[in-house]
Amino acid sequence: MTMDNGVIGKSIKRVDAFDKVTGRAKYTDDLCDKSAYIARVLHSTVANGKVLSVDTSEAEKIPGVVKVVTCFDVPKIYFPTAGHPWSTEEAHQDVADRLLLTDRVRFYGDDVAAVIAENEVAAAQALRVIHVEYEEYPFVLDAQKAMEEGAPQLHEDFPNNVLKHTSIRNGNYEEAIKEPGLIKVEGWYDTPTVQHCHIENFICYAQEEDGKIKITSSTQIPHIVRRVVGQALGIPWGKVRVIKPYIGGGFGNKQDVLYEPLCAYLSTQVGGRLVKMDMTREETFVCNRVRHAIRSHIISYVRPDGTFVARKLECFSNQGAYASHGHSIAAKGMGAFPQLYPCPNVEADSYTVFTNRPVAGAMRGYGIPQAMFAVESHTDEVAKAIGMTPLAFRQKNLMPKGFTDGFSKNVMYEDSFNQCMDKARAYTDYDRKVKEYEDQTGEVRKGIGLAAFWYNTAVWPISLETSSCRIVLNQDGSVQVQVGETEIGQGADTAFSQMAADTLGIPVERVHVVSSQDTDITPFGTGAYASRQTYTAGFSIHQTALLLKERILSYAHELTRMPVSIMDLTAGKIIRKTDGMVLLTLEELATEALYSLSHSEHLTAESTYQIKSNAYSLGCTIAEVEVDIPACKVKLTDIINVHDCGRLINPALAQAQVHGGMSMGIGYGMSEYLQFDEKTGRTLNDNLLDYKLSTCMDHPHLEGEFVENYEPTSVYGTKALGEPPVCSVAPAIRNAILQATGVGVNELPLNPHHLFKAFSEAGLV
Amino acid sequence: MTMDNGVIGKSIKRVDAFDKVTGRAKYTDDLCDKSAYIARVLHSTVANGKVLSVDTSEAEKIPGVVKVVTCFDVPKIYFPTAGHPWSTEEAHQDVADRLLLTDRVRFYGDDVAAVIAENEVAAAQALRVIHVEYEEYPFVLDAQKAMEEGAPQLHEDFPNNVLKHTSIRNGNYEEAIKEPGLIKVEGWYDTPTVQHCHIENFICYAQEEDGKIKITSSTQIPHIVRRVVGQALGIPWGKVRVIKPYIGGGFGNKQDVLYEPLCAYLSTQVGGRLVKMDMTREETFVCNRVRHAIRSHIISYVRPDGTFVARKLECFSNQGAYASHGHSIAAKGMGAFPQLYPCPNVEADSYTVFTNRPVAGAMRGYGIPQAMFAVESHTDEVAKAIGMTPLAFRQKNLMPKGFTDGFSKNVMYEDSFNQCMDKARAYTDYDRKVKEYEDQTGEVRKGIGLAAFWYNTAVWPISLETSSCRIVLNQDGSVQVQVGETEIGQGADTAFSQMAADTLGIPVERVHVVSSQDTDITPFGTGAYASRQTYTAGFSIHQTALLLKERILSYAHELTRMPVSIMDLTAGKIIRKTDGMVLLTLEELATEALYSLSHSEHLTAESTYQIKSNAYSLGCTIAEVEVDIPACKVKLTDIINVHDCGRLINPALAQAQVHGGMSMGIGYGMSEYLQFDEKTGRTLNDNLLDYKLSTCMDHPHLEGEFVENYEPTSVYGTKALGEPPVCSVAPAIRNAILQATGVGVNELPLNPHHLFKAFSEAGLV
Repeated sequence: MTMDNGVIGKSIKRVDAFDKVTGRAKYTDDLCDKSAYIARVLHSTVANGKVLSVDTSEAEKIPGVVKVVTCFDVPKIYFPTAGHPWSTEEAHQDVADRLLLTDRVRFYGDDVAAVIAENEVAAAQALRVIHVEYEEYPFVLDAQKAMEEGAPQLHEDFPNNVLKHTSIRNGNYEEAIKEPGLIKVEGWYDTPTVQHCHIENFICYAQEEDGKIKITSSTQIPHIVRRVVGQALGIPWGKVRVIKPYIGGGFGNKQDVLYEPLCAYLSTQVGGRLVKMDMTREETFVCNRVRHAIRSHIISYVRPDGTFVARKLECFSNQGAYASHGHSIAAKGMGAFPQLYPCPNVEADSYTVFTNRPVAGAMRGYGIPQAMFAVESHTDEVAKAIGMTPLAFRQKNLMPKGFTDGFSKNVMYEDSFNQCMDKARAYTDYDRKVKEYEDQTGEVRKGIGLAAFWYNTAVWPISLETSSCRIVLNQDGSVQVQVGETEIGQGADTAFSQMAADTLGIPVERVHVVSSQDTDITPFGTGAYASRQTYTAGFSIHQTALLLKERILSYAHELTRMPVSIMDLTAGKIIRKTDGMVLLTLEELATEALYSLSHSEHLTAESTYQIKSNAYSLGCTIAEVEVDIPACKVKLTDIINVHDCGRLINPALAQAQVHGGMSMGIGYGMSEYLQFDEKTGRTLNDNLLDYKLSTCMDHPHLEGEFVENYEPTSVYGTKALGEPPVCSVAPAIRNAILQATGVGVNELPLNPHHLFKAFSEAGLV
Repeated sequence: MTMDNGVIGKSIKRVDAFDKVTGRAKYTDDLCDKSAYIARVLHSTVANGKVLSVDTSEAEKIPGVVKVVTCFDVPKIYFPTAGHPWSTEEAHQDVADRLLLTDRVRFYGDDVAAVIAENEVAAAQALRVIHVEYEEYPFVLDAQKAMEEGAPQLHEDFPNNVLKHTSIRNGNYEEAIKEPGLIKVEGWYDTPTVQHCHIENFICYAQEEDGKIKITSSTQIPHIVRRVVGQALGIPWGKVRVIKPYIGGGFGNKQDVLYEPLCAYLSTQVGGRLVKMDMTREETFVCNRVRHAIRSHIISYVRPDGTFVARKLECFSNQGAYASHGHSIAAKGMGAFPQLYPCPNVEADSYTVFTNRPVAGAMRGYGIPQAMFAVESHTDEVAKAIGMTPLAFRQKNLMPKGFTDGFSKNVMYEDSFNQCMDKARAYTDYDRKVKEYEDQTGEVRKGIGLAAFWYNTAVWPISLETSSCRIVLNQDGSVQVQVGETEIGQGADTAFSQMAADTLGIPVERVHVVSSQDTDITPFGTGAYASRQTYTAGFSIHQTALLLKERILSYAHELTRMPVSIMDLTAGKIIRKTDGMVLLTLEELATEALYSLSHSEHLTAESTYQIKSNAYSLGCTIAEVEVDIPACKVKLTDIINVHDCGRLINPALAQAQVHGGMSMGIGYGMSEYLQFDEKTGRTLNDNLLDYKLSTCMDHPHLEGEFVENYEPTSVYGTKALGEPPVCSVAPAIRNAILQATGVGVNELPLNPHHLFKAFSEAGLV
């Protein structure tokens, strides 16, 4: 464990609290000069087809319209959009299937043309009078149907619309299932297309400056945006500069490069002038990214004593029209399957399939919420089939202490699952209620449900994990900390401040995180995703803080003549460890170092840390419901998430993360899904009125608790927390309904529509 | 000499040329959000006195006025304003005599109150209805009168208004002048108060953000502004963040902290809201800084053969109302005296004296234009008195090759003066014309005049010289360079780019200088002054580029297995020196280094170089005039400046510097001076209509030539060029008039008013 200066583990106030509460914090739109041209995109009104012509003549006549650019004008450079680190090996690079604008439209909402105008009104008017002639093709919205022979084909290079298919084969499934006396449990589990619904819609602006294209964007991944804009425009990556201000949420949608390349390109088409693209909510729903709808098929063979003998999984992940993050989300979900419940004989197959839906990309949980809904729903069915309680079955089968994954080298160092479940049981009085709710009758019944989850931290060894940090000492002994990892509302800057303060040995008030990234000057880091930041940036902050501390103590040696080995920096003071004497303050040292006539030095430090480890984050949800069977309505009456995410840097912020994730999980479980018109492929509920986003009015008290097992691979003992809270909520609610009614509802969301279907089939209504 | 990659010495296009010509370059006002409150200052209408009361009641009633702050509201924290590096020794710190607003007004234009309003109109209206009651004191505008017994006293701590008096005593003046046969030459030389007249008036804006006060300012010295704002507001310096965009000239005026502290303070008085202060031209003339009017008295005793025996100098420098740069300008001027013409017996005394004029501060040349006017005018008088030509007398007496200054350790390594004068003579056909113009009669006469100058580079050992640099490698093999030294229109960024490219071994197009400084992240450097930047930043750029190159080659070793010692980086490629083979491009290396799965590293370098040397910059002007004696008008018909400023980084930019300096020198010599109302102390010609700024309409062709003696103490062989071009222009014109008319005009500017006075006294008119 690292030396502790008492800053870690404290619920200090967010470093950006004051600015955000007072409205002083600047977001992209606040920063954009009011003289900016406004760009708007004309979206396809067919779900699959080809643009034959675009008539812009009327649009160009509208006063204030500066230029109209169509799919026939843009360069034919295909680029990827995934917020993944670049791979220098071509085989591992993301699929490059996007153009700035396209004449081969693949979903209702694809990008056909763009208008640049002096103001919003002219731009909107122009969009209305651009006439597009399409050749329409048949379209397909369902992943399994898209794989069928004769289905409409989206991309030439991907026959049967399969972007990728990967498999796991452990043991011998076919042999194993021959064992006599096994109980077979089978189920299909459906999760819907949902959207992130961050408060701030995607927005960016671009202009030419200093011989570069400079883009300010509401993104989670500025350094990746830089690279992709370079690729998309066919210019050297160093000619692109990306600035990321505060952003109003991202949840993975902004872990894709969205309209930054188009915006940059449009600026180049008007002499480098400032061009702003500010997405509407409707465009954010349809033309950004959505969560993959994944349909899973699970078969388990289990002995009557509750031992798994053989299991099979098939997943069909609905990618929508373009590759975005490719197969990685489905693959991550499938990866959880053999680990969460170890079983000697496993067959798993995962397919990522193009359809004519909006493009699916990263979203909080990255495939795990879908996988957990399938796996944890199925687990309750298995327990039920062999007559074990869901708890006892999990206690017997969940990944045990000591489990080691051969690929990631992750080790389950503690008995985390049982510790988490014990806390959740205690809070909910689970054991008593499980019994109490057995064998209910009547129209309104209560139920309590449990689900566990498993989550990897960061992306190693799938992909690169690297983080760089620079720390700059000021005259007053305060410091600036710069990292490529981004504050996206989650409180990263506050955690980083606590880390830097702790390792340097200065009060946390003396740490100023440079919140905004600027790819020209910010040390390289890939950004906010994969719940990686406290883990990965932790390493580089720690290493760089130690480097700076070493330089500070070395300078202190010049001033005090004391050996470095007997000095330390603590609470902003250089002390002599042998007697605790304060030799000088850091402020005195910093001032002297800058202005010394004998040895002037601006004390700073910068370093890169490449992370070659990973860690399991684990936990569970227990949810309690009241089901009104005739009304097919569920009321969530109580819920708790318990997490082992290692040591907490800031308990209050950790709680806030859990609350946000639980809320998102409740929406995922109970109300949210995008619906599509089967006749046109159009998204029907692309607004916050019709899309039933979960709000605080839909929640009971959200209880978040923690098991703080210090993660030994982590420099601050921490591991993933950003995404995990969303993962086990929906299956816990589903399992509570199962307990209440005896009916397993296997299609999300658990709304009256789906409950009616399931209850009808079960003869309950 | 450093390894040369062929980038130094080339007249590449300015790196900011395109952005500046197209209007794309952003200056302070371009960057300020339009929602900013507007602050305006109410200035004193008495030249000396005390504010008894300020009635703001009417002003506060004006719609749009947000707040009025008076001299009775501000904290009583005295702060300095000089753009000098901080000294940790109290005795060497600048005089702290300023308050944000003051009730003890010391010049007509002092700062009494400030209005914050929603718009310019309301602010201007408010200023007009604030009623101030003064107790008026007598005032004094002349430095020598201010030293007299009974003169009005400006500052309690400085009796007789003498801010400082320093002396030089070499040999024994009183004994030496007893030598028989010596010729005594005595003169008084007067230089006026002039202003910098940069195109962009001073402007800044401030707001609270991230727990700091953030100031964007048109300044030459962002890191110093940060410190002084901290001092003025009584807050830790790390709580201040200063950003410097492109600026429209400074010439030393912006080497003072001007209204940044007040602007920052005003923001704190309106809840941290954005407050902008945009100075008018009138305020820029009166309420910023001006050049010191210095009156010099020189006595020389010389043998008939032209040998100096003993010399005496007295300088009276008019400081105006506040200390600003203190005595350093007068001291620098006096310092030139014993060096330019070495003489065994010297007495020199320099007085910096407070008066009730606008505050004098730094201005291009920093005391040397005044000193050169006195010394070089006097030199021609001495030559005339003993019947030598001005050229022959200088050839005999100017600082010779091998001269070493004991204090600065500067060495005159080459015969630079003669080399410069030879070039100027050749261009002007000087030797022939000197003879031709002897003994003219008639109303219009021609003359040719010569003056030399001496200039130190940077401020060591008077004060700290330190420069830090950071260089960041991009994926495409391009780099960003960050230094604290500032682009102020002079082309520094272009020179820095050439240096970095040359030392790194990459094409100059691949160097992106981060032009804007941000004290939170920019490596420490004190800014643009003392013609220091190519010299001092040169050291840190060179050192940091070598450091980065070392890291690049070390990474190249990992990729190529070749020893570092036989590799080099040149033209953006890693080559094997033994056979010249290209092993890989820097782009390939940079991309691999960032994204390597085995060793990922963001290659950057940062270091501080403390400069403990200095160098002589030298040169001369030859000017040719036509004097219309009855009209007392001078027409400048030809002029050449020749400079030894070491190796030229960019000859075209060096030329531009020389042209700008010559223009400023012509204005100083012929037309510019601020005039004051003797009854009120008010500045009379505080605008560009009445103040006769020199323009291209007043110039003949400006010839700038160079003697490129590689400066051996300098890492790129360069030394001061920014200020020197202005130093010898005025005395050369004055000496040309002397040759034409036989009359030495010893008061600048050489306008009809002063010529009439001198010609009348000489009986010419």
